[in-house]
Amino acid sequence: MNYKDYIADIPDFPQEGILFRDITPLMADGEAFHQACDEMIAFARKVGAEVIVGPESRGFIFGCPVAYELGIGFIPVRKPGKLPRETVSVSYDLEYGSNELHVHKDSIKKGQKVLIIDDLLATGGTVDATIQIVQELGGEVVGCGFLIELEGLQGREHLKDYEVFSLISYK
Amino acid sequence: MNYKDYIADIPDFPQEGILFRDITPLMADGEAFHQACDEMIAFARKVGAEVIVGPESRGFIFGCPVAYELGIGFIPVRKPGKLPRETVSVSYDLEYGSNELHVHKDSIKKGQKVLIIDDLLATGGTVDATIQIVQELGGEVVGCGFLIELEGLQGREHLKDYEVFSLISYK
Repeated sequence: MNYKDYIADIPDFPQEGILFRDITPLMADGEAFHQACDEMIAFARKVGAEVIVGPESRGFIFGCPVAYELGIGFIPVRKPGKLPRETVSVSYDLEYGSNELHVHKDSIKKGQKVLIIDDLLATGGTVDATIQIVQELGGEVVGCGFLIELEGLQGREHLKDYEVFSLISYK
Repeated sequence: MNYKDYIADIPDFPQEGILFRDITPLMADGEAFHQACDEMIAFARKVGAEVIVGPESRGFIFGCPVAYELGIGFIPVRKPGKLPRETVSVSYDLEYGSNELHVHKDSIKKGQKVLIIDDLLATGGTVDATIQIVQELGGEVVGCGFLIELEGLQGREHLKDYEVFSLISYK
């Protein structure tokens, strides 16, 4: 399957100069969505994931089917004010703007093998912040899986210590 | 399985007087999450869902595994500014505050059987707005599935014309 056929390229969104890769056509196609999830599931099995961690909201799209299929837990990484119990948080810069991510303090067990799943690897800011939080909570990051990687933004430079999987790459 | 054992009750969140039902412990438990998804999947099969529609971001958590397992598409319902192509939108009142929801205009086919999935049925504002959008796009709502129903808020009153499933009910 040529997954790129299911990605819509949107110039100047959400702001001028950004070429947005819209994954909603892939999600809307039952066969493409299922196959994309299956590839992420195979990666999760390979790295021995014991729990999936995914940033809101697009990290939920592929992370939750992987957690379901493997029968393991899913830990959401959320923006400020969303998680009701005690959290650990990290602030970081986005491709456009800045952000602060939170994870419930009691969510990851010491030594638990964590696979981080998100839709997009761009500059790597989000995954870098997520790795920091996972490590502060005592989890062991065993891999990072993305639907799309924007190679030109060199996000993979942040991830040299980890197994990295991306289904679709753009130069 | 007593699913309520996996829900944390948080008083006065996100504001005074609200008893927030935190589903993250259920999501973090691989067996509980898998079983909860399986019950939603059984409901989706029963109503003959051809596509899943889910509001961001917690509608993705159960909606995406259901779409994956059935091999059907998932259509996200998103807040303003998130979807890059032409949308149909509806404004509505929340249990606390107000909101505006968008769906891509080309996402649902005429006559397609739509199952709406979200984590919570409270006053029914979100699902009501979602139904309006689905119908405007020509979809046929065949059911609404929720992890949690807050019976006291009578959201079900909005849903008399549809099959409704909730896994956990609170008075």
